[in-house]
Amino acid sequence: MRKIAALIFPGFELLDVFGPMEMFGLLSEEFTLELIAETRGPVPSNQGLSAHVTATTADEFDHDILFVPGGAGTRREVENTSLLEWIASVSGKSEFTLSVCTGSALLARAGVLDHRRATTNKAAFAWVAAQSSLVDWVGKARWVQDGKIFTSSGVSAGMDMALGAIEFMHGRDRALEVAKWCEYTWHEDREHDPFAQVHGLI
Amino acid sequence: MRKIAALIFPGFELLDVFGPMEMFGLLSEEFTLELIAETRGPVPSNQGLSAHVTATTADEFDHDILFVPGGAGTRREVENTSLLEWIASVSGKSEFTLSVCTGSALLARAGVLDHRRATTNKAAFAWVAAQSSLVDWVGKARWVQDGKIFTSSGVSAGMDMALGAIEFMHGRDRALEVAKWCEYTWHEDREHDPFAQVHGLI
Repeated sequence: MRKIAALIFPGFELLDVFGPMEMFGLLSEEFTLELIAETRGPVPSNQGLSAHVTATTADEFDHDILFVPGGAGTRREVENTSLLEWIASVSGKSEFTLSVCTGSALLARAGVLDHRRATTNKAAFAWVAAQSSLVDWVGKARWVQDGKIFTSSGVSAGMDMALGAIEFMHGRDRALEVAKWCEYTWHEDREHDPFAQVHGLI
Repeated sequence: MRKIAALIFPGFELLDVFGPMEMFGLLSEEFTLELIAETRGPVPSNQGLSAHVTATTADEFDHDILFVPGGAGTRREVENTSLLEWIASVSGKSEFTLSVCTGSALLARAGVLDHRRATTNKAAFAWVAAQSSLVDWVGKARWVQDGKIFTSSGVSAGMDMALGAIEFMHGRDRALEVAKWCEYTWHEDREHDPFAQVHGLI
């Protein structure tokens, strides 16, 4: 059983978080989920709707997986030194670290992606890549795995990455089972990225 | 500007709600979003994570769109007479009513789907269809529109339906723009439903 800590912050992107959490959450014998933020209680998304946070970054971290979404709020949080220090510290302790969309900007600024391959939202690619020159940014990828770090392209790509992470941890059959349950057509080829071309990255 | 009321209840399915809300929420000049439940504050999803509810079914309903998700909680809520009466009443006043997955079981029990075409989750099809014999249940459809009522197949299909509803209200270009922003490959053909076959409905 692995415990997932999904970090959120004001202006997190709804689907970045709840697409992957849907998929991990269906495997209730393999994963437990918790939302973590700097403050307990309601935290508003980029779409206005709020999630309810039950643990804060001040609490002891005893999770196995750190999950970091993107969203407009990342533009502010890349300057949030204490949050970046928390990310660096708990990512170091985690078995796996995952980010979706512009969440990789936070991992990059925290130094978690130094000398690693990573991807991000394709519309915001230039801004994210500018957050660290120590990262080997991949312009065309639905998601990238480099060792214990998974990073995905924008928003919806987080669901494909989540299934990729489930495959890595529990095998392809389990990932396909989750996709079938969600009536989701998994984009199983992590290198197939139609949005790289849409946004002129290839 | 249309106001969307997204009904939730304990055991709502995360992606049923937050996939479509991601898409409507990106069009902040066209839609505002609100979560409604029988109680204010945190309401737990089927995956355990909670959303924060700001309006209740006891408040005055001044929304344009009623949105009803599915999830394991629907098995209990189909017996919740006061909630079904609320659904019937506000759906009658709404310009559009949308449901995802087993959310159509609640619409069916509320009488909202009487003598209409509708679809639902393909794994739970028999249970949902048994909720009302007055509905023309469609076994093979990603989503169905019958007048002001949109119903979708399971979980992920809600995103395709949301884009279909955006197309209906604001045109295809706007729907494609949202899909591109989310890096989502829209399954634009509502009659293409690979999961109908997977679950032996065709």
